[in-house]
Amino acid sequence: MAPKKVTIIGSGNWGSAIARIVGHNATTYKDIFDPTVNMWVFEEIVDGRKLSEIINTQHENVKYLPGRKLPENVVAVTDVVEASKEADILIFVVPHQHVGKISQSLVGKLKDGAKAISLIKGLSTNNSGGIKLISEEIREILHIEVSVLMGANLAHEVADDHFCEATIGTLNKVEDGEMWTKLFNTDNFRINVVKDANTVELCGALKNIVACAAGFADGLKLGDNTKAALIRIGLIEMMKFVDTYYPGSHLETYFESCGVADLVTTCYGGRNRKVCAAFVTANKPLAEVEQELLNGQSAQGPLTAEEIYPMLQSSKNLEKFPLFVAVHRICKGEVSPDKLIDCIKGRC
Amino acid sequence: MAPKKVTIIGSGNWGSAIARIVGHNATTYKDIFDPTVNMWVFEEIVDGRKLSEIINTQHENVKYLPGRKLPENVVAVTDVVEASKEADILIFVVPHQHVGKISQSLVGKLKDGAKAISLIKGLSTNNSGGIKLISEEIREILHIEVSVLMGANLAHEVADDHFCEATIGTLNKVEDGEMWTKLFNTDNFRINVVKDANTVELCGALKNIVACAAGFADGLKLGDNTKAALIRIGLIEMMKFVDTYYPGSHLETYFESCGVADLVTTCYGGRNRKVCAAFVTANKPLAEVEQELLNGQSAQGPLTAEEIYPMLQSSKNLEKFPLFVAVHRICKGEVSPDKLIDCIKGRC
Repeated sequence: MAPKKVTIIGSGNWGSAIARIVGHNATTYKDIFDPTVNMWVFEEIVDGRKLSEIINTQHENVKYLPGRKLPENVVAVTDVVEASKEADILIFVVPHQHVGKISQSLVGKLKDGAKAISLIKGLSTNNSGGIKLISEEIREILHIEVSVLMGANLAHEVADDHFCEATIGTLNKVEDGEMWTKLFNTDNFRINVVKDANTVELCGALKNIVACAAGFADGLKLGDNTKAALIRIGLIEMMKFVDTYYPGSHLETYFESCGVADLVTTCYGGRNRKVCAAFVTANKPLAEVEQELLNGQSAQGPLTAEEIYPMLQSSKNLEKFPLFVAVHRICKGEVSPDKLIDCIKGRC
Repeated sequence: MAPKKVTIIGSGNWGSAIARIVGHNATTYKDIFDPTVNMWVFEEIVDGRKLSEIINTQHENVKYLPGRKLPENVVAVTDVVEASKEADILIFVVPHQHVGKISQSLVGKLKDGAKAISLIKGLSTNNSGGIKLISEEIREILHIEVSVLMGANLAHEVADDHFCEATIGTLNKVEDGEMWTKLFNTDNFRINVVKDANTVELCGALKNIVACAAGFADGLKLGDNTKAALIRIGLIEMMKFVDTYYPGSHLETYFESCGVADLVTTCYGGRNRKVCAAFVTANKPLAEVEQELLNGQSAQGPLTAEEIYPMLQSSKNLEKFPLFVAVHRICKGEVSPDKLIDCIKGRC
């Protein structure tokens, strides 16, 4: 079999961190992968020079991952079709609001049999008030197989080669597991593959809602016991959500990095927690707090809570998800944060 | 049926916090419980007065839970036999090293059909290099049924009525669940009963080992990803330990308060984490660090790691529990803390 050509679609913080790993592994496993890895770069001018040129000469993404070298076999390409047309493997790692447009631009331009993996944490919505997984969105547009990679993976720590773990979820082709492992696994980035893609992806999105509840608890100084209880209740709602809307999950998946590990880091560090903790005492709308604290980045949790709300409502399941609902209503300013525990108790 | 007489054996921080709840519920459910709850107090002199007298007049344990009133129906009794002889329900909440001696003193002195519940987190050892659960120790000495209550329950937060959850594990009598719930559940102390006592109890003991690993990671500044990975790997070792030595657990139990919730709080707060983080840079034996930081209290994690080590060794399972083994060896000074991740990778 010809070595597989790999393209990374995205070159932000996480995309660049993952390019270090993928570039390295493509060189290591020459029999499996083409050693030249394309990385689609949205062109920007940095200090008067094109970002793509800087990457291809200095081998560093000076804007999004400064101070860390990219392997020389990772080549920046500014046209997404050009970057992807020869690819056997597409790694999607762009902000989730851009996935649809980028996928559309690739329709009819990909090699037969190309496979994708999404590293994007978040959800999309459909026209009927429901949600769509990012992997579903890519699959529907491009008609290709889409796996996902999620876990407790702060990009800068992965780039610094700190030991961590990640979970790859595949939908039905467990035989691809070895290929994905060879592409992503390193001594300090430990991959486990599970055949439970929807659960893996939903964990990555839903944990941000739980982190908002953890943030409110921190802001309200409710203490360690209460925070632990909220994280646990949030985890149970995540599981219930998957069971209700994407049935067929394995309980074991929640013990993977995408499950408890990612949930925990997000609830103790992470920007959702931070923004929501600050919101409690801020006396202004959440969007303003977000603006002030995140320097233009956005917190995913409030958005995800908003995206799933109509779905819970239309399926008459609001009462079954008191934490998810409370987070949404608090973020919207409809309920005061200090009513969080009352809401959890069903008195909201 | 005659109302059940309840005795709390122990009056420390946790014992006093739980006395507030049990005292309240015994009054609320007069048809089920005798409203007078005995609390065995190890007599001490505080500011020239007997602690038991202070409790019975001021209704406050001024030494171990100052600033919080005990219900007036909780009565301090200084003789453990006197306190327990009429009891239908015995709540054990003493330091784990005293359980054996206290239980011995009660042999032949209890009412027929008396039942116990242990709130004690820790392990005991047997004569053949193995471990014994605290509930097993009580059961063997007193030949009574012993359930357990565990969870993410810092005593002072429970005493302050902050919302939290706890898990009661019963061995085979699920019909007692309602009684235990009535005795312990309040609006802010949410009880769930599971028929999986050994798992519940082992979670309470083993999580302290994982918290040591989390502490080393903090001390070494390994970052959030690595800490999350260690907590996850630790949880998997907890599950494997239960499966190996106390088979028959339910996966669901780990999602209870006694599982992920207690693990998480202990790994982010808690004294095991604190002592082990300080140990990394202290350049002195762990026992000295403990002495300095904990003001005479002890960290359970290093002790529990030591207690299970011979068992792992004699059953040739050391390689299956790299985190538990690494924590023990680091605590003993046999391995440097900065080798933690190498140990987890099996290169220690």
